[in-house]
Amino acid sequence: MRTRLQDVWRRGEVAVNGWLSIPSTVTAEMVARQDYDTITIDLQHGLIDYQMALPMMQAVGAASDATVIARPPWLEPGIIMKLLDAGALGILCPLVNTPADAEALVRACRYAPNGIRSVGPTRAMMVYGPSYIQEANDAVVTLAMIETAQALDNVEAIARTPGLSALYIGPSDLAQSLGHPIRMDPTDAPVLAAIDRILAAAKAAGIKAGMHCMMPDYARQMAARGFDFVTLGNDVRMLTAELAARVGAFRA
Amino acid sequence: MRTRLQDVWRRGEVAVNGWLSIPSTVTAEMVARQDYDTITIDLQHGLIDYQMALPMMQAVGAASDATVIARPPWLEPGIIMKLLDAGALGILCPLVNTPADAEALVRACRYAPNGIRSVGPTRAMMVYGPSYIQEANDAVVTLAMIETAQALDNVEAIARTPGLSALYIGPSDLAQSLGHPIRMDPTDAPVLAAIDRILAAAKAAGIKAGMHCMMPDYARQMAARGFDFVTLGNDVRMLTAELAARVGAFRA
Amino acid sequence: MRTRLQDVWRRGEVAVNGWLSIPSTVTAEMVARQDYDTITIDLQHGLIDYQMALPMMQAVGAASDATVIARPPWLEPGIIMKLLDAGALGILCPLVNTPADAEALVRACRYAPNGIRSVGPTRAMMVYGPSYIQEANDAVVTLAMIETAQALDNVEAIARTPGLSALYIGPSDLAQSLGHPIRMDPTDAPVLAAIDRILAAAKAAGIKAGMHCMMPDYARQMAARGFDFVTLGNDVRMLTAELAARVGAFRA
Amino acid sequence: MRTRLQDVWRRGEVAVNGWLSIPSTVTAEMVARQDYDTITIDLQHGLIDYQMALPMMQAVGAASDATVIARPPWLEPGIIMKLLDAGALGILCPLVNTPADAEALVRACRYAPNGIRSVGPTRAMMVYGPSYIQEANDAVVTLAMIETAQALDNVEAIARTPGLSALYIGPSDLAQSLGHPIRMDPTDAPVLAAIDRILAAAKAAGIKAGMHCMMPDYARQMAARGFDFVTLGNDVRMLTAELAARVGAFRA
Amino acid sequence: MRTRLQDVWRRGEVAVNGWLSIPSTVTAEMVARQDYDTITIDLQHGLIDYQMALPMMQAVGAASDATVIARPPWLEPGIIMKLLDAGALGILCPLVNTPADAEALVRACRYAPNGIRSVGPTRAMMVYGPSYIQEANDAVVTLAMIETAQALDNVEAIARTPGLSALYIGPSDLAQSLGHPIRMDPTDAPVLAAIDRILAAAKAAGIKAGMHCMMPDYARQMAARGFDFVTLGNDVRMLTAELAARVGAFRA
Amino acid sequence: MRTRLQDVWRRGEVAVNGWLSIPSTVTAEMVARQDYDTITIDLQHGLIDYQMALPMMQAVGAASDATVIARPPWLEPGIIMKLLDAGALGILCPLVNTPADAEALVRACRYAPNGIRSVGPTRAMMVYGPSYIQEANDAVVTLAMIETAQALDNVEAIARTPGLSALYIGPSDLAQSLGHPIRMDPTDAPVLAAIDRILAAAKAAGIKAGMHCMMPDYARQMAARGFDFVTLGNDVRMLTAELAARVGAFRA
Repeated sequence: MRTRLQDVWRRGEVAVNGWLSIPSTVTAEMVARQDYDTITIDLQHGLIDYQMALPMMQAVGAASDATVIARPPWLEPGIIMKLLDAGALGILCPLVNTPADAEALVRACRYAPNGIRSVGPTRAMMVYGPSYIQEANDAVVTLAMIETAQALDNVEAIARTPGLSALYIGPSDLAQSLGHPIRMDPTDAPVLAAIDRILAAAKAAGIKAGMHCMMPDYARQMAARGFDFVTLGNDVRMLTAELAARVGAFRA
Repeated sequence: MRTRLQDVWRRGEVAVNGWLSIPSTVTAEMVARQDYDTITIDLQHGLIDYQMALPMMQAVGAASDATVIARPPWLEPGIIMKLLDAGALGILCPLVNTPADAEALVRACRYAPNGIRSVGPTRAMMVYGPSYIQEANDAVVTLAMIETAQALDNVEAIARTPGLSALYIGPSDLAQSLGHPIRMDPTDAPVLAAIDRILAAAKAAGIKAGMHCMMPDYARQMAARGFDFVTLGNDVRMLTAELAARVGAFRA
Repeated sequence: MRTRLQDVWRRGEVAVNGWLSIPSTVTAEMVARQDYDTITIDLQHGLIDYQMALPMMQAVGAASDATVIARPPWLEPGIIMKLLDAGALGILCPLVNTPADAEALVRACRYAPNGIRSVGPTRAMMVYGPSYIQEANDAVVTLAMIETAQALDNVEAIARTPGLSALYIGPSDLAQSLGHPIRMDPTDAPVLAAIDRILAAAKAAGIKAGMHCMMPDYARQMAARGFDFVTLGNDVRMLTAELAARVGAFRA
Repeated sequence: MRTRLQDVWRRGEVAVNGWLSIPSTVTAEMVARQDYDTITIDLQHGLIDYQMALPMMQAVGAASDATVIARPPWLEPGIIMKLLDAGALGILCPLVNTPADAEALVRACRYAPNGIRSVGPTRAMMVYGPSYIQEANDAVVTLAMIETAQALDNVEAIARTPGLSALYIGPSDLAQSLGHPIRMDPTDAPVLAAIDRILAAAKAAGIKAGMHCMMPDYARQMAARGFDFVTLGNDVRMLTAELAARVGAFRA
Repeated sequence: MRTRLQDVWRRGEVAVNGWLSIPSTVTAEMVARQDYDTITIDLQHGLIDYQMALPMMQAVGAASDATVIARPPWLEPGIIMKLLDAGALGILCPLVNTPADAEALVRACRYAPNGIRSVGPTRAMMVYGPSYIQEANDAVVTLAMIETAQALDNVEAIARTPGLSALYIGPSDLAQSLGHPIRMDPTDAPVLAAIDRILAAAKAAGIKAGMHCMMPDYARQMAARGFDFVTLGNDVRMLTAELAARVGAFRA
Repeated sequence: MRTRLQDVWRRGEVAVNGWLSIPSTVTAEMVARQDYDTITIDLQHGLIDYQMALPMMQAVGAASDATVIARPPWLEPGIIMKLLDAGALGILCPLVNTPADAEALVRACRYAPNGIRSVGPTRAMMVYGPSYIQEANDAVVTLAMIETAQALDNVEAIARTPGLSALYIGPSDLAQSLGHPIRMDPTDAPVLAAIDRILAAAKAAGIKAGMHCMMPDYARQMAARGFDFVTLGNDVRMLTAELAARVGAFRA
């Protein structure tokens, strides 16, 4: 099984990630019809739960070969395994604060003997074929969100967790946790310093680094800085931005 | 019962209309949180059917005092009455091609003795109060879409239909029907001539005129031209525009 | 196939009908757990469309042997046949104003050679067994709503429509159409006179008569008057009544 | 725009059609993962309405390049156009009994000047691209169901309707209407005679002919007889058959 | 941000709470149209999960300025944070048995540095505005359910948990846990003694006390006893009570 | 309260279990219309979450007196209790690896003083009557899945957990965990040896033993081997098998 994300990374390129917060197969398909390499379905802060995530994965599949990633609400093996069985090929786990958290994430995503994932990939086997079980441990990527002061303190150790694919920065939580103001696409020095530390930790450990970005200029800067994976906008903010621009222009 | 649309019109102002094509209460609420005077739920070309329109009306109500209008799939009294019972205070009816069509639209929206609307406003009475049945014939607006060559031929007679509130121009169908290319926010002379004829017919009959617009500049031009009601964008096109702009800028 | 409704009528008793307006399988099951002989799913003024009516029929079936009746939004054969295929054993059709309407209703509910119902009872055959197609023309009841001045003028002829099972009175529409105030459980003389004319027309034609009632006392009076079928309350009004009573008592 | 169905027919081959009656994106994807050329979503006798058909089309698209066909509940332009806007590339219309019915079907599926289809292909344009409106009149196939004695009487004239793509035989309704017993995959002489007349009418008019089949042997016989399009099973009957076989074998 | 609940409490009054167990936006709106100060969506014993709770919050918002509270199924931070992001302004947590439980509840509801709530209030920021993140720690109330013998033993310590807003009594679980019969609106001495101990613990700690009541008389007694927050009925029991009363009266 | 599962076991017979992985009330009803003694709704590897499991339980109830069992995604008390409140009379818990896991399972399913189940059986009391709370501890069965090497090591101790009703073998996970190839209906010696050890542990402890089977022959062998409960197929695999057989036969 080849995934588009792994292909992008094998070519040494930066993966561009779309982001789904709206519980709708229609907006999922609209996002997936853009040239994204991966699409993340957000079950944490997105307004989405499992039963909606499932047809959204189907809608993404109708529109794109982008690799589907899911963000579970919490580091909880039940929902992580359900999302993998439904066809997600990556788990972006919030609030990985310790090496033990990172190890738990990896183990929830791996079949024995590498982990504790239960066997029963109902939709994944439909989509990826009869050898899915043999191939899944290699195909599924695990991304640990680094977004608290505690996680930052532990970041080098987290990055060395065997089987972890990438670190991913959630800048809002990170800023809040460090006592700095929350800004989209932050450029203030202390937050950038934390970002660089996380990036360096990933590189030192030989894994990938991802960054949550809103605007294309910022995402390009982050790619230039060395990130291997950049989120570019999300459905809620993009629709709101365009709505506000048009109504504002008319009402002005 | 006072409606925001009728208040806007009483003040001689132009109503700005939002447009819902995505079957989602979340995008409905997002659109409704903008400063629109009315919100149209599109059951014709929108990807929406009755059972989804109902919670979308609730979501609009959570966010705004905008007047809810519904576009049924067809001039069919069953669905028109269901939408009114669910709380719509306006019906934007597609493909009103003859005075008989316009009369059928009006009668479907009016209780006896003015029409054939069946009594049973299950949600409307919850929302608008116990005197809804007495007030509904005055509160509900009826908008007839003029969008075919046949309708254009009949437009003056259609406009004079007793009880009709407004004509509304669907420029894509109108252009297609007249044999002209389809353009968003059209400015080619023959389509503009048809638009002006419809506008004049409405004014001559003492009713309102509405226009389907995408961009704020064009909507302002149409307001200046004399329209009383302008749609400004729709959810599908706005999200797609912003997505394409961001991904395009990054990929460039 | 025996239906509870037909059994009640064979015994010369009055059928008590529950009424579902809320689009929910849970309220459907709650209503069905009461001792109703029939349960009507209202797709006209109820907030319910086909895709919700289907699991509501299942929920009723989980709780009761009550005969499921559906009220379509309009006399339209497409939705009538879908509701029968889904398992409804009765159609309560709104706004039957002429003998032609009544005949159209009957024909939509009958397989050839008695009508035009299309063959394909996907769920009905699951529920009622492999001989459903042979038995359906006898088992399915057709109830024509008499609720306009026009219908009242035609009521004797409507009642004589071959294959029609019953007349059913919608007192709100009837009062509105006759120019009288709308009242639940009406007792004013002109409306009662219309009610009696309809009841007499049914009896003269040898078919059943049904009445839409809210409170048990009124329903008992109507049963005593000769009605064979009485609706007793509806989910929306019953929940609202109890809510208002409790909150009002506390706030007083 | 090329469709798989048209490619199959250009090659002179027989299209194999899957059939969806269960309202589920999961079963839709399961059926679509088989090697079907087309998949029909049945909104008539299937337990499916528009709002469920939409994500089912997405799920089919995730699994297959099969051409999506929809069967509306009735020859009603509102739902036919909604299904086309949602991405269906074929309409299989029930109960086409007269040439006027056939013409109405074709006109509902064609943009002006060939028909009355309203412009607004919200999802279809997402899926098939910006030139969809120009290409749709050629790409969308129209299949008229011949399933009553009246239709059989008119079949040669129906077949000559300009713009009609195919006749399609519904053997259950046809048998019922002709007064013969209903059988799956019928082989009794009078029904076969009617089948042959319909097939001949299609061939004489230069259009395609389709047949509703359950078992592969029968479908192969029908292909050999000259049919261009054979349905092969449906989801409800196939799951039921396998369930009954396994439970029966165990209980025996 | 001002909440109605906090306003009621600032005025020294008793908040009256509505209760939603039915998974339906329609019943949610019906309850919210009564004069309740708060509405609790019950994801524990109610038949409701996250994806249904979301549009129910919208429906409540369409009908009322009541403060929305959610009861999660369990003290699990993933679902608590999802409910807050969706717009709940209070969390009523079941089975808070120890001070550590209470502290975990508070921390799940508070942004850093007061807790571990992750930043991403997707709908809450739409509803409550751009300064929501700054204001949320003050606006969100935390209610700990005291409903086991263990909790009763620890109640004074639980009440002193910094950041806890209120204790709330679940009398059924409490009675069961203490070995007494379960009664709605209990008046037996040992249960009342436990109730009084909990009330006293809240008062001593300077926080609020809430009680789960069914009938208005009992709720008024509890308000008189000193409770600051009384639930008054729930949707399931109220609809069932009215159904049983009407059907019983007719059948009698 | 009598359950069909307990009746089967009281008679010393083998219960035959149906399995639901498709999130649909229609497939649920189809499976339930077969002669299964129990029906398991799989929220772990099935594509089903709580909000879909609820109407599926209703649909099963419409078709059968089979005892409803639910498999939660994980040993998590919140979801286990929600499933019981919704009407499940058995919990089949995945990955019970230790006696502590088994005890946690039992306690989540039992009211005080036997466990920690919270009182509020909203639907269960509707279905099973007012004495449900008194009877539930006896009626609800608890089935622990033995499917890892660790569980196998602990199986005798797990089997002795007070209140546990049965052990249930998940052969895929068990094989994977033991380092053997995954096979449906396994017959290789090391897996059979593990199966026999689990069966013996159950028998020694005086509890029941269940086995996950696909084909009727294998299920009969397992019944003959001594199992008290055999799953026979699942909806996904049965529909896929029949689809593949028919399409394969035609395409051959």
